[in-house]
Amino acid sequence: MRQIDLLSSLADESGTRILMVVMDGLGGLDFDGRGTALDVANIPNMDVLASESACGLFDPVRPGITPGSGPGHLSLFGYDPLEFEIGRGILSALGVAFPVVAGDLAARANFATMAPRGFITDRRAGRISTEKCIELCQELSNKISIPGVEIHIKPEKEHRAAVIFRGAGLSAGLSDSDPQHTGVPPLDVKALDATNEAAKSTAAMINEFIRKAKEVLAPHSPANMILLRGFDQYQKIPTMPELYHLQCAAIATYPMYKGVARLVGMDVIEGASNLEDQIALLEKSWSDYTFFYFHVKYMDSRGEDGDFDGRIKVAEEFDAALPRIRALKPDVLIITGDHSTPAKMKAHSFHPVPVCLCADLARKDDVNKFSEKAFLYGALGRIRGTDIIPLALAHAGKLVKYGA
Amino acid sequence: MRQIDLLSSLADESGTRILMVVMDGLGGLDFDGRGTALDVANIPNMDVLASESACGLFDPVRPGITPGSGPGHLSLFGYDPLEFEIGRGILSALGVAFPVVAGDLAARANFATMAPRGFITDRRAGRISTEKCIELCQELSNKISIPGVEIHIKPEKEHRAAVIFRGAGLSAGLSDSDPQHTGVPPLDVKALDATNEAAKSTAAMINEFIRKAKEVLAPHSPANMILLRGFDQYQKIPTMPELYHLQCAAIATYPMYKGVARLVGMDVIEGASNLEDQIALLEKSWSDYTFFYFHVKYMDSRGEDGDFDGRIKVAEEFDAALPRIRALKPDVLIITGDHSTPAKMKAHSFHPVPVCLCADLARKDDVNKFSEKAFLYGALGRIRGTDIIPLALAHAGKLVKYGA
Repeated sequence: MRQIDLLSSLADESGTRILMVVMDGLGGLDFDGRGTALDVANIPNMDVLASESACGLFDPVRPGITPGSGPGHLSLFGYDPLEFEIGRGILSALGVAFPVVAGDLAARANFATMAPRGFITDRRAGRISTEKCIELCQELSNKISIPGVEIHIKPEKEHRAAVIFRGAGLSAGLSDSDPQHTGVPPLDVKALDATNEAAKSTAAMINEFIRKAKEVLAPHSPANMILLRGFDQYQKIPTMPELYHLQCAAIATYPMYKGVARLVGMDVIEGASNLEDQIALLEKSWSDYTFFYFHVKYMDSRGEDGDFDGRIKVAEEFDAALPRIRALKPDVLIITGDHSTPAKMKAHSFHPVPVCLCADLARKDDVNKFSEKAFLYGALGRIRGTDIIPLALAHAGKLVKYGA
Repeated sequence: MRQIDLLSSLADESGTRILMVVMDGLGGLDFDGRGTALDVANIPNMDVLASESACGLFDPVRPGITPGSGPGHLSLFGYDPLEFEIGRGILSALGVAFPVVAGDLAARANFATMAPRGFITDRRAGRISTEKCIELCQELSNKISIPGVEIHIKPEKEHRAAVIFRGAGLSAGLSDSDPQHTGVPPLDVKALDATNEAAKSTAAMINEFIRKAKEVLAPHSPANMILLRGFDQYQKIPTMPELYHLQCAAIATYPMYKGVARLVGMDVIEGASNLEDQIALLEKSWSDYTFFYFHVKYMDSRGEDGDFDGRIKVAEEFDAALPRIRALKPDVLIITGDHSTPAKMKAHSFHPVPVCLCADLARKDDVNKFSEKAFLYGALGRIRGTDIIPLALAHAGKLVKYGA
């Protein structure tokens, strides 16, 4: 029996509330001998929470594996990313609230800059504005058609978009056109299995789409090319409400995180563009749900920029807001991340992520500081991402005994 | 998706170097109230290394399982021993550099002493010399033939040998002839599944081989009998170079460890018979590989002899050599073992094994002593053996992100 099926068989409806705060990129590394951002930040409310909680560290996928946001979040929601393989394309499509149906093939797209000789010089087209992205997606939609396929080109933020292909006989067994490096040309999309005829014809169709897109984008330098990656076909997975009997709400500001939330069956509460808004939405919808996923974006963004002090600032801003969140008195409050993003590495990393679980039933430890090192000695130990939902449900009194 | 397939899909070629030092039987237990060998040994260089590393403990197979050298090493190389079941016979054959091909059936052999009434009185024939072993293997090879089967009898060290049977229709589903105890007769080899005709005919052939060997050995007391165990047939497994894009070298002195290394696709650098030689080979081949497996034998041997002070001495000898190893500046240096061998138990044990990982990206802890107890409080926590290769690759910058 899979762990998720065990959980589902034990999950019991109850009125208790779980609030899972995901501080994106929460974990870090020592930066120039100063310690980590959590070591340095002035976060008295988080420290008090840690002292009242069971603390630990978790590996989102497996030790050593650096998760993208998709696998990191799936793991937090109880889905082993090695069992539930969801491509970036589908996550992007869900992120822009595109109503995907089974069989839809989706890719993550970047607008990019291509030099006259055909080499990619900027994979993000100088981070064009979201307005420009919307305009380009509209123009591509108006000007490109391929017989037998519906093509939907939907803007995300800045240079990011999702492309969804709908039609008969499509296959997702495709390589990326995005070379992931500059100084090289875009790649032809190819069937990963050369004997898969459906994949071969899908690849040919997509290469034609890219050729046409290049023509349309030619006058729009620096956004004169489109790069596609993460091809995947949508398949419905069992949702959190189905599995755990939770009424689930997501409060996030970025499309990607809303997409993952939709995939697992959460209602996305729209309307927040900053932490203040998010807390207001949380308060307003508090009585309507039994599980809240609350996403805090910017420790990750600052980490990717190598901005150590920025990470400290985001932690401190969240800390200042924590009393308002705790005033809602969740039965289980979890503060964690979906992966680490050390400023030292300017990227997601494989390092285990702090997790703090506050509940009346939590077995307390001696931790009284919210930090990576302090959490080494916490009552939760080093766990897997997929252990977090079971622990949340258990501490909320939502799981019955297994066996008599 | 299996973890090893995930790893393989993420592994990226790079020039960084990983050095994995395996101190065989590294972990121990308190001995007569003195602490463990690592507690007592004067190992200042290892202590400093620990203070600069992420430390922890790992279970080679699963908690509570005592591993043989084969499973212990497979786990260290990223192969879950429960997925990759390799019999002792194949490991022995590879260990003596026998060129096994698919379908070969191999067994580990001991020369043993049998009393006139047919009971085994010494399973190691008084640990005969390697020269005597070579002579006996030659004589058996010359005098025994069985129609339809090629038989290769290859000496290891002292009383140990490997026997390889090559022919059509062989089966590995066989019980051992080695009773693993003295005071009882050797066992008939039997088909584990009585309905498996291939196994039944293979068992009959092997019992005939043993009968003939007994005749040939009769004048050679104390080595007047041969005991066979660990029957297995060779199947190629995906190699470390294939899986992880590493160029792998093994530097070991004992055949068994060279055998495991060959199994996983390492080049075995021959020519070392002691630690000094091994380090010279390591230095000489340093620029030719991106992964080195460096095996240090004698903490295990002393542990099996119950020689606690001998374990201390081996640790101190290695400690004295550590600066020369560190001078090579590996990007990732791991010092660990394949299992514990407490002198108190005179045997391999199930206790978790210390692991110390030194790398620029390691998240530091407060450990400053290289010992079992100190490592309890390390940043790696308690992990699985199969977590070590992913962590090594990750800290060496050889794994790309999983999902976007």
